Amino acid sequence: MPGRKVILTMQVKDLGEFGLINRLNAMVTGERRGPDNGSAYAFRLLVDTGDDTAAWSTAAATELCTTDTVVEGVHFTRETTPWHDLGWKSLASNISDIAAMGGLPLYALITLGLPPETDVAGIEELYRGMLEIGAEYGVAIVGGDVVRSPVVFITVALTGVRSGAPLLRATARPGDQAAVTGWLGSSGGGLKLMLEKAAVSEPAATFLREAHRRPQPAVAEGQLLARSGVLTAMDVSDGLADDLSKLCLSSGVAARVYADRVPIHPRLQEAFPDSCLELALHGGEDYLLLFTAPAPVMAQVMPALPAGAAVIGEITAGPAGQVTLIAADGSEQVVSRAGWDHFG
Amino acid sequence: MPGRKVILTMQVKDLGEFGLINRLNAMVTGERRGPDNGSAYAFRLLVDTGDDTAAWSTAAATELCTTDTVVEGVHFTRETTPWHDLGWKSLASNISDIAAMGGLPLYALITLGLPPETDVAGIEELYRGMLEIGAEYGVAIVGGDVVRSPVVFITVALTGVRSGAPLLRATARPGDQAAVTGWLGSSGGGLKLMLEKAAVSEPAATFLREAHRRPQPAVAEGQLLARSGVLTAMDVSDGLADDLSKLCLSSGVAARVYADRVPIHPRLQEAFPDSCLELALHGGEDYLLLFTAPAPVMAQVMPALPAGAAVIGEITAGPAGQVTLIAADGSEQVVSRAGWDHFG
Repeated sequence: MPGRKVILTMQVKDLGEFGLINRLNAMVTGERRGPDNGSAYAFRLLVDTGDDTAAWSTAAATELCTTDTVVEGVHFTRETTPWHDLGWKSLASNISDIAAMGGLPLYALITLGLPPETDVAGIEELYRGMLEIGAEYGVAIVGGDVVRSPVVFITVALTGVRSGAPLLRATARPGDQAAVTGWLGSSGGGLKLMLEKAAVSEPAATFLREAHRRPQPAVAEGQLLARSGVLTAMDVSDGLADDLSKLCLSSGVAARVYADRVPIHPRLQEAFPDSCLELALHGGEDYLLLFTAPAPVMAQVMPALPAGAAVIGEITAGPAGQVTLIAADGSEQVVSRAGWDHFG
Repeated sequence: MPGRKVILTMQVKDLGEFGLINRLNAMVTGERRGPDNGSAYAFRLLVDTGDDTAAWSTAAATELCTTDTVVEGVHFTRETTPWHDLGWKSLASNISDIAAMGGLPLYALITLGLPPETDVAGIEELYRGMLEIGAEYGVAIVGGDVVRSPVVFITVALTGVRSGAPLLRATARPGDQAAVTGWLGSSGGGLKLMLEKAAVSEPAATFLREAHRRPQPAVAEGQLLARSGVLTAMDVSDGLADDLSKLCLSSGVAARVYADRVPIHPRLQEAFPDSCLELALHGGEDYLLLFTAPAPVMAQVMPALPAGAAVIGEITAGPAGQVTLIAADGSEQVVSRAGWDHFG
């Protein structure tokens, strides 16, 4: 019919990454059926889809499992991330998810999708990077899969363990303070430096490249938070604004962040004075922990964190998922988006 | 220098899939360092890289973890495998690995690599297929990841559980009989049927398509084998010749298979009388169990398997990994290859 538009199908890019994930998560929890094979072993599911990791309790411990994937050209390029660093980072992002639950990482399965022309020496370097971070954090690679693919991708599945209840995203309450365990935006600054070939001082360049290539997941910090009575945490992997928004959405709360309290490393400030706040809010791949707690708990935990931490704002009763940035002059701006959409 | 050939780099296709896997497995076991985070919880690694799954013991149970990936255009096409069936099969191949250890499947993490133009309704169908087999076998999807990718790929990571030691690949001994828990080659026959649009009877077409699209992992059979004193098993996913060769390589033994004992379903025989043995040996995706045991154990376990099973040959002290086929006329032929090389 003239003038009538018929939409036949919806594509993933129309729905967006988080729209699709939400729809699939609703299916797998709402339509789950069949026997519970774990019940004979007293396994009980504690954390379902939607947090940093899944978690279940057993007679032995609380067990955690997470997975994370990077695709060449989407999440990395070999120009900005050499094979060795790619190995480090592929495991780091998964270790960071375990850290965000207050757990220790244990066993990893590595899946490589590789074009047949891939250089074997490069793949060995990739594995050396994984072995290096594995040795530092106590991760054993115990299996995996190698498949042919037109594009390089790396999927890591990682288990973890802890005693007691894991740190969650859904437990933030109005009145909580919100804090982060380290400097924000440094990894994004490193990427920007490499992509734009920006002229910055050698110490700043070294610091920023290292932050981008060798992130240090906050496993010790996650353990300390959980021991200190903190209930709510997630890792910052997509940028503070996005990740705080996700945490707030999970908890049905909003947040206010004070721009002058966002911890920005002097080297990032020096290298990118005009965009460092933007990088801190939206840069991604910092792999530190974002957590919330009532002021008395926060007062106890802050001095105990060895590398320091910063209270950046507070949780409020506003619209679920909304993050408002308060500038130094008192002006306010909503900075939350619906998550960084890889399909947009 | 004239006449001198300099090889600068080795590519994945030069080394081959199994060459690469062996090299990486040697690295991750030989160069593993760092703290054992599981020791405080009495977790002990039982099965390292190279079997159907990794396995570790805890105070609660023996726990298993496996992962398997399919890439569009390499492992499937949407013409021969609709989304719903692709969901079923993606989980089936992982459940089959858990079955091969004698375990029950538990929790799955699903990673989807998707082009932005992918039809959302198709992805929901994919998940319905996963939910359907999940309900049948007791698998709960508890998390995952959705990433943008130029090619569709699906990675499943699946945990499992059992009491006691898992069934292994490395424990076959000369003198063992070798057996399979079902008909071989039917899935490969279904694929051949669809690719070649072969003219076969409707009952045969229905049987073969179903075998290809809806494989039934042998979880009950794996449990029964383990309870009956069988020590050695793996699942048949790449074809009998390849998988038996891998089992023999793990155990440092060889095998002899009698062509007239290879179980071929009458429908496959009817549809492809000339190639059914070839399909049974090399077809792949049958997802039944291959196991070995001394004759007295085998005599006890065979009648107990509800869907039947067939002794197809025996384990010998020959060259590690060599599989010899004995034809009905007594002639012999080595049928083992170095594994089906996806990169070749």
